[in-house]
Amino acid sequence: MGDFSQAAASEPRVAFQGEPGAFSAGAARRLLGDGIALAPCETFEQIFALVERGGADFCLAPIENSLFGSVYQNYDLLLSHDLRIVGEVNLRIVHHLIAAPGTEFAAVRRVYSHPVALGQCRRFLAAHPPLRPVPASDTAGSVRLIMESGEEGAAAIASAEAAAVYGARVLASGIEDDPRNFTRFLLLARADRAGDPPPEADKTSIVFALENRTGSLFRAMSVFALREIDLTKIESRPLVGRPWEYSFYLDFIGHTGEARVGHALAHLAEFAASIKVLGCYRRAEANTEESAP
Amino acid sequence: MGDFSQAAASEPRVAFQGEPGAFSAGAARRLLGDGIALAPCETFEQIFALVERGGADFCLAPIENSLFGSVYQNYDLLLSHDLRIVGEVNLRIVHHLIAAPGTEFAAVRRVYSHPVALGQCRRFLAAHPPLRPVPASDTAGSVRLIMESGEEGAAAIASAEAAAVYGARVLASGIEDDPRNFTRFLLLARADRAGDPPPEADKTSIVFALENRTGSLFRAMSVFALREIDLTKIESRPLVGRPWEYSFYLDFIGHTGEARVGHALAHLAEFAASIKVLGCYRRAEANTEESAP
Repeated sequence: MGDFSQAAASEPRVAFQGEPGAFSAGAARRLLGDGIALAPCETFEQIFALVERGGADFCLAPIENSLFGSVYQNYDLLLSHDLRIVGEVNLRIVHHLIAAPGTEFAAVRRVYSHPVALGQCRRFLAAHPPLRPVPASDTAGSVRLIMESGEEGAAAIASAEAAAVYGARVLASGIEDDPRNFTRFLLLARADRAGDPPPEADKTSIVFALENRTGSLFRAMSVFALREIDLTKIESRPLVGRPWEYSFYLDFIGHTGEARVGHALAHLAEFAASIKVLGCYRRAEANTEESAP
Repeated sequence: MGDFSQAAASEPRVAFQGEPGAFSAGAARRLLGDGIALAPCETFEQIFALVERGGADFCLAPIENSLFGSVYQNYDLLLSHDLRIVGEVNLRIVHHLIAAPGTEFAAVRRVYSHPVALGQCRRFLAAHPPLRPVPASDTAGSVRLIMESGEEGAAAIASAEAAAVYGARVLASGIEDDPRNFTRFLLLARADRAGDPPPEADKTSIVFALENRTGSLFRAMSVFALREIDLTKIESRPLVGRPWEYSFYLDFIGHTGEARVGHALAHLAEFAASIKVLGCYRRAEANTEESAP
């Protein structure tokens, strides 16, 4: 994991979870351009740890999906590591049927991918009965698998980027059942290297804990409403082992340098059990069909 | 799917997603006891459809997990089908290493399971290097797989219930990295057969939509706070394709027959773009370590 030996000295080093060609890698390029060195890691813990110990400049973490909801694991890692959110991107998850060059669509029999991706392409697979789904541990990894094995009639379901990385061919595009499949990825940097939020940053993410008293959430909301600060996300999460205590994940429009934002956070601190500012960054475009690639 | 041919006439028929021995099946028994007829289905859509057309009395749907967050897919299905929540249970997800009788732990080499379950047992697998993870499409299904194939040195990771269903043996229990892994399952019935909520029902789930005006969520919260109604869950979800419009999922303590609850919902309806009451039911115990099986 985290091998940047071939990176140019000037290139930002970006860790992501998955194999080369994973959707996270595409999200990294969308945010930082093509001049980056990407390091695939096996777990989310590893990408956070790599940035924390200076082995990577950034990491990319999926934080919520339009069909599946929030990725609490990555919120937990944001609490246990001293990283800051420095950017975000909404990526539409487009699935492709991918095979080795020379394999025609009509010849495909076995289709490898992560069970979640196979499940998202159920209608396409059902409409083409010769195609038999075969579970694999990774979407991009299943492209590597079929390219390495040379298995006849084998294909994979993954991103177009994965086809490019392994020199494979896209046989069919947009084969997912539901095109409203977006994942929001966060770009994270070490807190002491993230610097102050740039002037164009217009969104702030925080997490805070409240004891469950009647109206305590209402009081927390009032801190923002009274200062006319717009919320773009709120989510409560029960604390395991502490019944009736909650953490709240909150995103709002505003810069931590603004007086009203400073006042709102100070006001919240008067009664919240804890608060952590996860980052202040420039917001991505909303999930509109039109903004999809 | 949905085969109840062997069910006794008096047994409630319960549809769930997964193979026999899935965690959902365990959740169904926890809520309804052992005298039920269980029908495994391939997809969540199928369990909702089966109840809707009267082919099953209930279905069991996972709605949120303590590590992964909410299952938006099932919220969407609650909106598109006329089912009601009639109960809930918090189930701790305990993973087991399972093999055919006669296979000793020392002989195990290949471990089949869904990639998510394999990922949740990473530390256990790393601590026992002879064990090699092999992706499969289902946890309980991987137990069926190793029992049918008779493959030497094969094991699976799944629930204890799956071991029992297929006559397999548990070699190791509680092998998950994080014991704080709970899933909340909802018990659903057809709206016209669900009847009125029983007197002991003390929790209500609703979903509503708001236009994103400054303070609109604060106004929605005030509807409950002004009537001293306790919230136990709130979650915003951006509407794909309609930037800056949101749905909110809300759970609160209260019975839809109470005057203050009726007033709060009427008040909310004055300005919400839409409201749907998903159900009024008896709440499950909180996720405490102590309540775990």
